[in-house]
Amino acid sequence: MEESRIVEIKEDILADNTNAANSFRKMLEHQGTFFVDVMASPGAGKTTLLLALIEELRRSASIGIIEADLESFVDSRKIKDAGIQAVQLETRGICHVEMSMVERAFQAFGGQHFDYLFLENIGNLVCPAEFDTGAHKRVMLLSVPEGYDKVYKYPPMFAVVDSLIVTKTDYLPLNPDFDMAALRKQARVLNPRLEIFETCARTGEGIRELAEWIVACRKELLE
Amino acid sequence: MEESRIVEIKEDILADNTNAANSFRKMLEHQGTFFVDVMASPGAGKTTLLLALIEELRRSASIGIIEADLESFVDSRKIKDAGIQAVQLETRGICHVEMSMVERAFQAFGGQHFDYLFLENIGNLVCPAEFDTGAHKRVMLLSVPEGYDKVYKYPPMFAVVDSLIVTKTDYLPLNPDFDMAALRKQARVLNPRLEIFETCARTGEGIRELAEWIVACRKELLE
Repeated sequence: MEESRIVEIKEDILADNTNAANSFRKMLEHQGTFFVDVMASPGAGKTTLLLALIEELRRSASIGIIEADLESFVDSRKIKDAGIQAVQLETRGICHVEMSMVERAFQAFGGQHFDYLFLENIGNLVCPAEFDTGAHKRVMLLSVPEGYDKVYKYPPMFAVVDSLIVTKTDYLPLNPDFDMAALRKQARVLNPRLEIFETCARTGEGIRELAEWIVACRKELLE
Repeated sequence: MEESRIVEIKEDILADNTNAANSFRKMLEHQGTFFVDVMASPGAGKTTLLLALIEELRRSASIGIIEADLESFVDSRKIKDAGIQAVQLETRGICHVEMSMVERAFQAFGGQHFDYLFLENIGNLVCPAEFDTGAHKRVMLLSVPEGYDKVYKYPPMFAVVDSLIVTKTDYLPLNPDFDMAALRKQARVLNPRLEIFETCARTGEGIRELAEWIVACRKELLE
């Protein structure tokens, strides 16, 4: 197997993906839709955070959610139970979401327009970082039980995102070693423009601030 | 980009990898070494579990550890601080460990033989499932804070491993929704031969049982 041939194919795939993502992003802007890609490890609390965000945003805006998983409909069911439009995207074992998958999933909304579209990406802190999904902002979650020492271990993800959302802050008392100041510092060294939020979906901590940031980003883009 | 060409290349890579893994496994057996591949999400507690296991095993056996990360030396330093031989394997952004990486890392031990060799794989519940690393047993960790509903979301990993090690059981009181019985049932439906352990490295729960299973597996293979 020639290494150079593989690298070349991968670059072709990524270039095609980015072109498609740029078109999709423009199309959404014409529809007035602001699109956020939510990435994290498995179990960092993506679905739970989205459910909390929905409660903040739904009063004054329409929302659509694309739920990606290797298989299963567990998460899209939770979103639908909350009365929000959701489409399940099954990657069939693939470790990330590509633009072609987003386009197909979006078609399943049947032409509906939303103020906010969210993609809950595959639970994977590595591979999704490489693939532009057509979102206007990319955010990553890091849950307190995972530990604060992840910046040096998973630098590509920390480098590409617009926001780091620390989740499950109610676990801080059980994690006296979790060094929030070190996390903030390390993350900002790698990515100086990073917006950082500390949240807990259970207690509601930080959810309003996060929602306000998303609303402001949409305003800046569309108005 | 032709899909068939990519699939073909991937199959070639996986076949080459499996052949190399089989040779490596045989070589270790001749040296009396039992090799365990430890896989999990980021922050599931792989390093902490290994540190607890070391304490159980080191009294009567020699141990070597290969610590894989995209970048950084955080984890191998922790292992070395415990007085155990460790080699850092940096994948340089690659989302899984392949056989060629294991071979190169193993050479860094400089010809030492161990009774037990452990690989702490990349924190990723998806991609490492596909790559045989030459281990005799493959185990996965799932931490309580991640939630119990992961079998349907990450089936390839649950299907390939020999053991599911539930970690951080001290978080159960904070997670009344964590349904251990459902997790056990779903995991065994997908993988009937799965050995399941409930552990907590902090309190020591389940660590001895896990160590005894590893010792018994080595005996069965080598004696």
